[in-house]
Amino acid sequence: MSFIKQYRCTLCDQTFAYNKHIMTCPSCCEKGILDIEYDYESMRKFVDLNYFKNQKDFSMWRYIHLIPVENKHIDQMLHIGWTPLYRVNALEKQLKVKQLYIKDEGVNPSASLKDRASAVAVLKAIECGYDSVSCSSTGNAASSLACHASRMGLKSFIFVPKRAPVGKLNQLLIYGAKVFYVDGDYKDAFNLSKDAIDAYGWYNRNAAINPHLVEGKKTVALEIAEQLNFSLTNWVAVSVGDGCTIAGVYKGFYDLFQLGLIKKIPKLLGVQSTGCSPFVDAYLNGEPIKEVEENTIADSISVGIPRNPVKAINAVKKTLGAWIAVTDEQILESMKILGSSEGIFGEPAGVAALAGVKEAIKNKIIKENETVTIIMTGNGLKDPLNAQKAVKAPALVKPRLEDLKQILEIKGEKRHA
Amino acid sequence: MSFIKQYRCTLCDQTFAYNKHIMTCPSCCEKGILDIEYDYESMRKFVDLNYFKNQKDFSMWRYIHLIPVENKHIDQMLHIGWTPLYRVNALEKQLKVKQLYIKDEGVNPSASLKDRASAVAVLKAIECGYDSVSCSSTGNAASSLACHASRMGLKSFIFVPKRAPVGKLNQLLIYGAKVFYVDGDYKDAFNLSKDAIDAYGWYNRNAAINPHLVEGKKTVALEIAEQLNFSLTNWVAVSVGDGCTIAGVYKGFYDLFQLGLIKKIPKLLGVQSTGCSPFVDAYLNGEPIKEVEENTIADSISVGIPRNPVKAINAVKKTLGAWIAVTDEQILESMKILGSSEGIFGEPAGVAALAGVKEAIKNKIIKENETVTIIMTGNGLKDPLNAQKAVKAPALVKPRLEDLKQILEIKGEKRHA
Repeated sequence: MSFIKQYRCTLCDQTFAYNKHIMTCPSCCEKGILDIEYDYESMRKFVDLNYFKNQKDFSMWRYIHLIPVENKHIDQMLHIGWTPLYRVNALEKQLKVKQLYIKDEGVNPSASLKDRASAVAVLKAIECGYDSVSCSSTGNAASSLACHASRMGLKSFIFVPKRAPVGKLNQLLIYGAKVFYVDGDYKDAFNLSKDAIDAYGWYNRNAAINPHLVEGKKTVALEIAEQLNFSLTNWVAVSVGDGCTIAGVYKGFYDLFQLGLIKKIPKLLGVQSTGCSPFVDAYLNGEPIKEVEENTIADSISVGIPRNPVKAINAVKKTLGAWIAVTDEQILESMKILGSSEGIFGEPAGVAALAGVKEAIKNKIIKENETVTIIMTGNGLKDPLNAQKAVKAPALVKPRLEDLKQILEIKGEKRHA
Repeated sequence: MSFIKQYRCTLCDQTFAYNKHIMTCPSCCEKGILDIEYDYESMRKFVDLNYFKNQKDFSMWRYIHLIPVENKHIDQMLHIGWTPLYRVNALEKQLKVKQLYIKDEGVNPSASLKDRASAVAVLKAIECGYDSVSCSSTGNAASSLACHASRMGLKSFIFVPKRAPVGKLNQLLIYGAKVFYVDGDYKDAFNLSKDAIDAYGWYNRNAAINPHLVEGKKTVALEIAEQLNFSLTNWVAVSVGDGCTIAGVYKGFYDLFQLGLIKKIPKLLGVQSTGCSPFVDAYLNGEPIKEVEENTIADSISVGIPRNPVKAINAVKKTLGAWIAVTDEQILESMKILGSSEGIFGEPAGVAALAGVKEAIKNKIIKENETVTIIMTGNGLKDPLNAQKAVKAPALVKPRLEDLKQILEIKGEKRHA
């Protein structure tokens, strides 16, 4: 059942009839990113607490009636979503926060949250009769698209900037994508992909163009709400690059609010790296978004010109949330903290949200009696070179107990009686 | 409820009362690996089709009554198991086999099947009052142990051989393990860990010593059976190093057979690399296992002296299965085939089973009208350097459409009208 009502342009606020072939606002063109609006009144009669209680599909497709795709081919997809939400007691104590949860998106098929959006793109491409999909990406959007395209028998054409980490590049190639490794930054890769998509007529998965992708990403918020029994934490923190993920998180909570299933949308904490923080800069200076340098190890959020500023800014503003920036050192430290206290290994952009929460607690943006959910967006195995910066390589030891004893006794380990 | 009956030594066949503190046979010592036997008659009254049908726990702990751990602390563990089993139609056609399934173990918390065993080890260590756990490992056993130890607040001491891939080493360090990077091969690391465990009194997670670990690994077979509605494929293929995983797979099916839930145990195909194939050599030559060189890219199955030969050999023999070896080239080719046709990225040891199935089909060991399940044991992101060998790195392209057109038109891509 589809509850789609219409498109609304996030720039000019005009509404248009929904048409799956239209991507951006006919008036504002490319900058006019569209939002899909639903008929919540009708939806409410169908999607209520019982709807969730009786769902037996433990994947993102349990929300099929809130996602603008036809209910076809879903059983052939790889398993995406219904990722674990962990209460992290050890970390909670360390951070001195009332309640802390981590949503681990690293266990998705291509190891990041982006699988949720790419799955929708691939289904939409099939629905619209395409045999090829394309996007530009710093890594995760691309690998997730290549992953699901390969599974569903589509070709994928991917544009990556030069700084994409080796783990992510290999992943693309293993999935059989046609990769264009662009001698430039994200902006160059994005522009070239746009031109090529126009010229060759591939399905466009660029999240800041295609309005369906946010609707895939929002399922992470729907899951968090359901996993917390619709009693949400005061804050939800997520790292921000293009702005599409935080827009998706907002949209998921917005849906639930409109359905009367939650009373309040959590405050959203948008986290960026100080090496690339256009949203934070604009927020602190009260100015419009300006292009900035892309200078951080957190490649997934290293976006100098965010392509989805309106939705992202609204998400934080409407929830009375906040923006915060953290250094690459804080990101690496958080990688180690999360791994060693909870057994969760996140990539730099994934653990940036944890670093942001630490900083926000320090700055009293998040108060001691508040509760927090962190969305850990991607698996640390995707970026071994940066993980290596977070740890100290062990020295080689001779295979002799005597040598070992010396090391252990310096560390204060006691021998068995 | 515990249905444990007794221990039986796999070497001398003597039985002993179960005692969680005893690891190996009191008569045969270290080589006398123990098997945990259950009271299937009592178990049958409790664990039937309805038991499975009514289970609401979608993790390995849905089988808690078949696992020798107390039902404590389980809700604090990371989410392990109930991994997807995919029908892989595209691959099925390529391989010309009647039905083909892949069990994707790469989406476990530390990204391999070993999480199932390490979880049992960590719970058992807590049960027995230990605060530290230890093992030697070529990688996955170690990272999974470090992962779950960290989550559950235990210290971990890990012995890895020099050739452990960088991705796996980083993972250990991120999880906060104390890593001993042994200047030698797996055998050296194993022996040093044994001495240190004796000297320092840590809990021993070495799979070839600790009889509980196979009981964790067996849950992969229980899941496959349940996901196939207890109608199993003719074959189940898995890569083999130490021999513990294939022993676990056998044990899972054996449990179900004893419970009357399956009529026949599938034939097991044990797959090794030609660079390190002690089981295959012994099988082909009809001789006992001999020590061999460790010379393969598939580090997880690069074990020159298998520590669990008896259980592994029995698993193949009793199911009328087979042993097969594949080259590293075939392994790399399978990595690409699985990724590009199904969107699943496996590590070398993970995709070795697929290479083995291809080879077994070629050699008419697996017939055209037979059905097959492949256990894909670990995520490809764990080993980026070998993944790189499987693919061709893309050349840098200038960010200009004109340059792109040349490349695409050589490849035969047509431009939009």
